Amino acid sequence: MNTFGRKFRVSIFGESHGEAIGVVLDGVQPGIPLSEEDFAGDISRRKSGPKGTTPRTEDDAPEILSGVYNGFTTGAPLSIIFRNRNTRSGDYKLFGDMPRPGHADYTASIKWLDFNDPRGGGHFSGRLTLPIVAAGVVAKKMIGYKVSAELVEVGGVSREDALASYREEALPDGGIEEKDTPGASEIWKDVLDEAIREKDSVGGIVECRVTNVPAGLGEPFFDSVESLISHAIFAIPGVRGIEFGDGFRAAAMKGSEHNDPFDTADSSGLKLHINVHPSKNGAGGVNGGITNGNPIVFRTAFKPTSSIGKAQETFNFATGEICTLQIPGRHDACIALRTPVIVEAMTAIVLADLTRML
Amino acid sequence: MNTFGRKFRVSIFGESHGEAIGVVLDGVQPGIPLSEEDFAGDISRRKSGPKGTTPRTEDDAPEILSGVYNGFTTGAPLSIIFRNRNTRSGDYKLFGDMPRPGHADYTASIKWLDFNDPRGGGHFSGRLTLPIVAAGVVAKKMIGYKVSAELVEVGGVSREDALASYREEALPDGGIEEKDTPGASEIWKDVLDEAIREKDSVGGIVECRVTNVPAGLGEPFFDSVESLISHAIFAIPGVRGIEFGDGFRAAAMKGSEHNDPFDTADSSGLKLHINVHPSKNGAGGVNGGITNGNPIVFRTAFKPTSSIGKAQETFNFATGEICTLQIPGRHDACIALRTPVIVEAMTAIVLADLTRML
Amino acid sequence: MNTFGRKFRVSIFGESHGEAIGVVLDGVQPGIPLSEEDFAGDISRRKSGPKGTTPRTEDDAPEILSGVYNGFTTGAPLSIIFRNRNTRSGDYKLFGDMPRPGHADYTASIKWLDFNDPRGGGHFSGRLTLPIVAAGVVAKKMIGYKVSAELVEVGGVSREDALASYREEALPDGGIEEKDTPGASEIWKDVLDEAIREKDSVGGIVECRVTNVPAGLGEPFFDSVESLISHAIFAIPGVRGIEFGDGFRAAAMKGSEHNDPFDTADSSGLKLHINVHPSKNGAGGVNGGITNGNPIVFRTAFKPTSSIGKAQETFNFATGEICTLQIPGRHDACIALRTPVIVEAMTAIVLADLTRML
Amino acid sequence: MNTFGRKFRVSIFGESHGEAIGVVLDGVQPGIPLSEEDFAGDISRRKSGPKGTTPRTEDDAPEILSGVYNGFTTGAPLSIIFRNRNTRSGDYKLFGDMPRPGHADYTASIKWLDFNDPRGGGHFSGRLTLPIVAAGVVAKKMIGYKVSAELVEVGGVSREDALASYREEALPDGGIEEKDTPGASEIWKDVLDEAIREKDSVGGIVECRVTNVPAGLGEPFFDSVESLISHAIFAIPGVRGIEFGDGFRAAAMKGSEHNDPFDTADSSGLKLHINVHPSKNGAGGVNGGITNGNPIVFRTAFKPTSSIGKAQETFNFATGEICTLQIPGRHDACIALRTPVIVEAMTAIVLADLTRML
Repeated sequence: MNTFGRKFRVSIFGESHGEAIGVVLDGVQPGIPLSEEDFAGDISRRKSGPKGTTPRTEDDAPEILSGVYNGFTTGAPLSIIFRNRNTRSGDYKLFGDMPRPGHADYTASIKWLDFNDPRGGGHFSGRLTLPIVAAGVVAKKMIGYKVSAELVEVGGVSREDALASYREEALPDGGIEEKDTPGASEIWKDVLDEAIREKDSVGGIVECRVTNVPAGLGEPFFDSVESLISHAIFAIPGVRGIEFGDGFRAAAMKGSEHNDPFDTADSSGLKLHINVHPSKNGAGGVNGGITNGNPIVFRTAFKPTSSIGKAQETFNFATGEICTLQIPGRHDACIALRTPVIVEAMTAIVLADLTRML
Repeated sequence: MNTFGRKFRVSIFGESHGEAIGVVLDGVQPGIPLSEEDFAGDISRRKSGPKGTTPRTEDDAPEILSGVYNGFTTGAPLSIIFRNRNTRSGDYKLFGDMPRPGHADYTASIKWLDFNDPRGGGHFSGRLTLPIVAAGVVAKKMIGYKVSAELVEVGGVSREDALASYREEALPDGGIEEKDTPGASEIWKDVLDEAIREKDSVGGIVECRVTNVPAGLGEPFFDSVESLISHAIFAIPGVRGIEFGDGFRAAAMKGSEHNDPFDTADSSGLKLHINVHPSKNGAGGVNGGITNGNPIVFRTAFKPTSSIGKAQETFNFATGEICTLQIPGRHDACIALRTPVIVEAMTAIVLADLTRML
Repeated sequence: MNTFGRKFRVSIFGESHGEAIGVVLDGVQPGIPLSEEDFAGDISRRKSGPKGTTPRTEDDAPEILSGVYNGFTTGAPLSIIFRNRNTRSGDYKLFGDMPRPGHADYTASIKWLDFNDPRGGGHFSGRLTLPIVAAGVVAKKMIGYKVSAELVEVGGVSREDALASYREEALPDGGIEEKDTPGASEIWKDVLDEAIREKDSVGGIVECRVTNVPAGLGEPFFDSVESLISHAIFAIPGVRGIEFGDGFRAAAMKGSEHNDPFDTADSSGLKLHINVHPSKNGAGGVNGGITNGNPIVFRTAFKPTSSIGKAQETFNFATGEICTLQIPGRHDACIALRTPVIVEAMTAIVLADLTRML
Repeated sequence: MNTFGRKFRVSIFGESHGEAIGVVLDGVQPGIPLSEEDFAGDISRRKSGPKGTTPRTEDDAPEILSGVYNGFTTGAPLSIIFRNRNTRSGDYKLFGDMPRPGHADYTASIKWLDFNDPRGGGHFSGRLTLPIVAAGVVAKKMIGYKVSAELVEVGGVSREDALASYREEALPDGGIEEKDTPGASEIWKDVLDEAIREKDSVGGIVECRVTNVPAGLGEPFFDSVESLISHAIFAIPGVRGIEFGDGFRAAAMKGSEHNDPFDTADSSGLKLHINVHPSKNGAGGVNGGITNGNPIVFRTAFKPTSSIGKAQETFNFATGEICTLQIPGRHDACIALRTPVIVEAMTAIVLADLTRML
């Protein structure tokens, strides 16, 4: 239920405003160098802070409880917890009567009745993606090859278009300093400013690429690489769609356009040589459910943040009447900004499991 | 590996040109009326025959080996096989040297080496969707509520546009007879004719709707309804993407547009009453991974059929040179035509499992 | 539910008097030579025929439906069925009213109500051990090392005592011919004759030894080798107990007697050399759940056959009165005679799974 | 690997001398009243203290990190940790060279190489049964009916014989005070005194009874109640055997003796009434893998504690020579004394899972 994987198993637990959240990783091979510092980089990528994310912050310091000895993984279950500190539970009872549109307030109360912990979204909170990012750090070490994700669209504006605007504004007379690698909050500054001004929110699209992945991972049908990755990706709150390679555009293509012909990329020409790559990548690196040695490429659509300050007409179950809800507090105007590292983590988790199952 | 589900488990086996293909269903509750005739309807929807599908046909007659007694399921594993009859294995060795672009020929040989059965695609063949359709028939009986899928786009032409053209041609002077419910092969006749003429293929998009689904199915995170459905859907050969509710469009929407406010659809106003529906359905019926009582709605993108008669430049691993491949035989110009019933089956399988897990 | 294993998965189906029984093996590695003839040896060991087993026989011919191509396993699911032929269903409705003591008639009707197939025990029949034996044949090929089981006690008489009597009777003047390797039915002839005469039945104890098993298989706690083997062994109908190494006797031993000290069996003295064996084997080859390189040794207690011709006082649910039941037909006087090969199969299945999980 | 169960899943983690040990319980239904105090009773039954157990003690205070809100389980994963405090790691490197006979030192080093945490047995330590006892407390609340285990034999002396001696000594002139319910350490005082005097250890047999268990739990074959219980029981360190009902004695019985006839215990005579009990219980409450409504009864054999102060001749892998090992420190002379509550916990865990799977 709250576990993913067969041989490398990731189990998450915790509530947003409870004692702690955490993760147990079972099936980590022994001998991987690991310390609490190793988590800092990926955890900081998930943190709020830049424009478009909530000003509320947690220190998000991982505490390894088991599975590491003398600086290496032991082979025993690796457990990591994060204490919850910056919790302001406020009056979540309000959302019992007036479930927030787009949130799990209503469905959680259907499923777990009045026993559900509603504080900060409880177990349904996006905060649970923090232990997933931690699991991803370990998974990345297990697989060795590179998983990288980045935003390619925010609020309907493509990365290219946003970059063009950013660079225009960043001209000497544009007033802002141009950076070599501006962050997403800078690139899509205009889109985010508008959403913040309107107390509204925007969504985004994340593209993930896995390079140097060995051919032969995955199974036909139920355990296809796409099945497993999509399973994990839809476990991230706010995902509305996923597509591999040419994705939805493939539906409008001819077979002669979409097919990836094989080519001579590999000088040896050996059939089993993993460097034999198709010349293009409409399939996103997977044929018949199994990696073909090409990069795995997929895109994930994130909806706009559900919590918005703007007034929404919704239903008050206590009074039985339509009412206006303005969600108090400070929110992420664009939750997608914080998700590329989560997409990477989920992908690495899937690949670590597939590699262990070989 | 070739099994899906926890409490209702579907296991498929078989090769396209082997003795038989089949499925074992474990966890079927006792007392469901079932006979071999019950499979005819859905199996015929998957069959080839109409324009745009291969002229090669199998009788696809199910043989129930176990799990049914006196016309009812017993509770014991239900196994069903289909003998393969219309097999013309021909020279599949060719595809050992020249793996067909878009097919699993290459990845299967990486995974299972020379032991892979290549005849007709072997275990990777789309023929394995036949036992999945059979499993879907049982799953639909288990859940009781309605799962229905249909093509909404073929070759880049939407159902609305195609229907408009069809109706125009079907005017008394247009020469063809207008039907109340024309089949997809008729609606998209022009698109299919072009693909067939060019010995090429086209893709399509299938929309699936589940109505009267109870609220409360699914789990937060890893066993979200979207995770499980996408897992099953990507097990269908040829799928490139899936999106729920507003899908990829949600990424370009504002939160105030995308959120589903609650409304007074239910006169009782009782929070737990499953008729309390959000007024729109941008979420596709799922919040926080759990059904909210609204219809589950999702779309699946199918790529164009990989096997095309049109010449493709690809690589010959035997000669080590680029070569031209014209795949002989007769193929589905649009495999998507046969997939709506497969999408339904996969969806029903997921829901039957979730219902059993309650 | 009807499946065992993680990476090598064995799923059984079928009813005693239905169309067919069978098994699907998922996770068989490609390249194992396999044909239908390979099953003959083990299947014949399970067959009835010798004294003490039922005179009713089936041909038990396996039909491989998938997973084998050109004489080798392919890597795809391997499915095998056995048609039921020699079925005389007779009046099993009788056992609906008067459930047979020791049988599953009663519990099956609690679990699956009136939908249970009662003919010949239906899905609960010992006949389902036939596909398990078939799975064992494949598992044995997968692991490569030797699993062998034999009866060490029948009807309370040890193998040593029974052999002594047998040899005494087999003296030239004893009238019967002494064989080098007499079958169990010959060794325990006297015990069996008595049971048959009394229309009663006897139990037995099977000892299983796995030699040359590599050290390092298994996991601490839940997936200990003993946990997995006992799980599989108790799936055989009629098992009442299992013990490893010194077994129940260990409970009455001192630690200094029971502990297995390490010794110099291996000339290299390398700690990781799998030939480093403890000098005795009170632990049955497993420490902390993990194989230590010593033979795995365990004993399984089989109850006397439940079906006896002798009159039993039991309850008639139709009349609500105590009644006398004489089970008609011909039965195994000692079902344990047919079980060593089943114990071997279950053990090999567990070890094949553990080896695949490494 | 370190998880048990399908619908109610128990995952343990931790090392004896690491930061903390713990357990995650997934699939707990919402609404069970639960607080940290609820664990005190069962945890104290596992604690050392009485004669025959180690004088080393931990406070064993559970810390609930998630899954409980306002005093009730929420439905989300329930996680509990126990900090390790009383750790004296000493020189466990010694056991790297001279693995302790009967322990997992050797097999752990085969499995996890030099990365294994050897301190106090690391992840292989019996200390991991503490979170299992905690899981059992929750499982007992989930099932509602009674699971109770007690020692019936220690060091080869039956409870009856030991009680007789105890009572004899407890006569007014015998010097000790007779109690209504003497503890096991008192009953088997003589046996334990001898073992302690000799710096040796003794084993024991635990009998477990589950009463008021509903009929119909379990599955035929692989998920038989015996399969699942034995799986869980062999996960307890030190178990050498398990038997149900008549157990190993059944192998020496006639069918007419061992079979459980049905009787009129239930006045209604309704077949489906769960009070219809067989008149005896040779089957231990299970037929065909499924509970029949009779108490589940089984016995578990525990070996003598592996760690003994008495000198043992064993092998020193560092010197390559036979050596004498005297394990320093203070040990349980009879670990079986602490196991009845662990047996109960494992049994309750299995039954909670089966009940959730219904």
